[in-house]
Amino acid sequence: MAQHTPDELLALVNTAIEALNLEQQPTRLYEPIRYTLSMGGKRIRPVMCLTSCELFGVQPEQALPAALSLELFHNFTLLHDDIMDKAEKRRNRDCVHIKWNENVAILSGDAMQIMAFDCLKGLPDSALRESLTLFNQTALEVCEGQQFDMDFEQDTQVTEVDYLNMIRLKTGVLLAASLKLGAIAAGAKPADADKLYEMGIHIGIAFQLQDDLLDVYGDTATFGKNIGGDITTNKKTFLLIQALKRADPATRAELLRWISAESPNPEVKIAAVTAIYDKTRVKESCQEEMEHHYRKALDSLEAVSLPSARKEPLLRIASQLMKRNS
Amino acid sequence: MAQHTPDELLALVNTAIEALNLEQQPTRLYEPIRYTLSMGGKRIRPVMCLTSCELFGVQPEQALPAALSLELFHNFTLLHDDIMDKAEKRRNRDCVHIKWNENVAILSGDAMQIMAFDCLKGLPDSALRESLTLFNQTALEVCEGQQFDMDFEQDTQVTEVDYLNMIRLKTGVLLAASLKLGAIAAGAKPADADKLYEMGIHIGIAFQLQDDLLDVYGDTATFGKNIGGDITTNKKTFLLIQALKRADPATRAELLRWISAESPNPEVKIAAVTAIYDKTRVKESCQEEMEHHYRKALDSLEAVSLPSARKEPLLRIASQLMKRNS
Repeated sequence: MAQHTPDELLALVNTAIEALNLEQQPTRLYEPIRYTLSMGGKRIRPVMCLTSCELFGVQPEQALPAALSLELFHNFTLLHDDIMDKAEKRRNRDCVHIKWNENVAILSGDAMQIMAFDCLKGLPDSALRESLTLFNQTALEVCEGQQFDMDFEQDTQVTEVDYLNMIRLKTGVLLAASLKLGAIAAGAKPADADKLYEMGIHIGIAFQLQDDLLDVYGDTATFGKNIGGDITTNKKTFLLIQALKRADPATRAELLRWISAESPNPEVKIAAVTAIYDKTRVKESCQEEMEHHYRKALDSLEAVSLPSARKEPLLRIASQLMKRNS
Repeated sequence: MAQHTPDELLALVNTAIEALNLEQQPTRLYEPIRYTLSMGGKRIRPVMCLTSCELFGVQPEQALPAALSLELFHNFTLLHDDIMDKAEKRRNRDCVHIKWNENVAILSGDAMQIMAFDCLKGLPDSALRESLTLFNQTALEVCEGQQFDMDFEQDTQVTEVDYLNMIRLKTGVLLAASLKLGAIAAGAKPADADKLYEMGIHIGIAFQLQDDLLDVYGDTATFGKNIGGDITTNKKTFLLIQALKRADPATRAELLRWISAESPNPEVKIAAVTAIYDKTRVKESCQEEMEHHYRKALDSLEAVSLPSARKEPLLRIASQLMKRNS
């Protein structure tokens, strides 16, 4: 069987999303869901899920219910995270809690989460129970990751281990579940499904570390967010945690002053903190950690019991994800 | 097989809730869930679910996964509704968004909803898919009911039909699903399961109409809430909708003045609006509507193809629900 390209799989996902038969009433419950889903995005998770299913020579349609669940769940988390993070824009459009209000965002998010769970019931009997178990566990872990992330804002003792665990939960497990759900839908051997899960975890961690790097060292035009956003908000990224650990006492004191400064000039702060990052060489350290996880991801894929040629499409997706500059 | 008493079934539910193996970390995700579940409550939905299962001569334990899902889901809705309604107290204790904060309440509610869905996977294969479908549809309808309820706050054109539809969604469908899920777990005939669903819808509507009545005509000591709470907040109850429809022009104008009055004395307002309710005889009209739905509930139970004696426990629960003065 010829494998589909990622674009063909994306088209499959988009068609299925458009075919979701949402109710009309009450308008303020369903309109925000339509709005959120119409924002598009790269649909990385469903595409990975379908790609994983097709690895095993099974038509991607078999994994489509899981792919939809993943995309709906991911969009639900964005909707609620934007309330919690007081974000105003998402993909250059007003967030739901801005365009409508917070109550509408809470409730339409709840409804979108229910729709995510509901899609799973389209899976064949052979895959249903195992998929439910994995999906639910993953969903709960994503909530854990978001709570740790919020906790870290107030916590000055966050270590690299804490941070890596947080991004594993917040980003890794959903990518991992995407690959594993595709494999389960395909009826793959459990050992292979588990290897793909591992791959997803490491891709997720590598991806998030790259996000930290791009926030400081990326190109504004292509990154899509403003450079230094994490610095202005004192986000406990891998870079900041490492810099606090590695800096000599004077530099560390300077960094802490910037963190506690009240309304500093953002450009001056970004330049100063970036200079500390450069001096403490945390960029290189973050790149090393990122490459370590990317290699582990490739090792996991390598261990899947299929001919190398079949793995090409997934390899390409992984490499695209890590080559992004946006 | 001897049937269990409601208290025995309640004990079964409480034991199962205590045995839920919640994670410890992150504390601010799981502690609010423990707190919410420890508040107790009457656990009406899971007890109805188990009672329904036992109607058909099947051990109630078989429906326990569904019973837990229902109770967790109901508690999740309370948690999020309290944010949306800006409620401060629930069962005389601080609401989660007051005791912690709003973000904690949003996220721990999300996690509780996931746990609710997850419990269902404990059902036997024969019941799983149908239960998932019903549970998800019900959950979405409860969200619809909450959105309609919030919409009605700003809407002066709400009719009785709108109102009855809203309480069907907000209260009826979850009680209906409780009974039907018990029947599905027991492997009851679809026609019987559907009759129990109908019964639950009507019990739910009757129960909510009674709540409207008790808010105005109840006894403070036993009702547990302050009398007239719906009047002070201009809640569009069956009484208010009917009074606006039935009142002569002068009385209607008086009622509208009270609704739009800025910071009126609550006691004076409650007395005045209650007097209008008395004059327009909406109490009697609400009682009639309530009794109509209660009779329909009993008719539905009557139509279940089981000997009358077996239906006694469920009949007693229904009658208890309607005889409450709190």
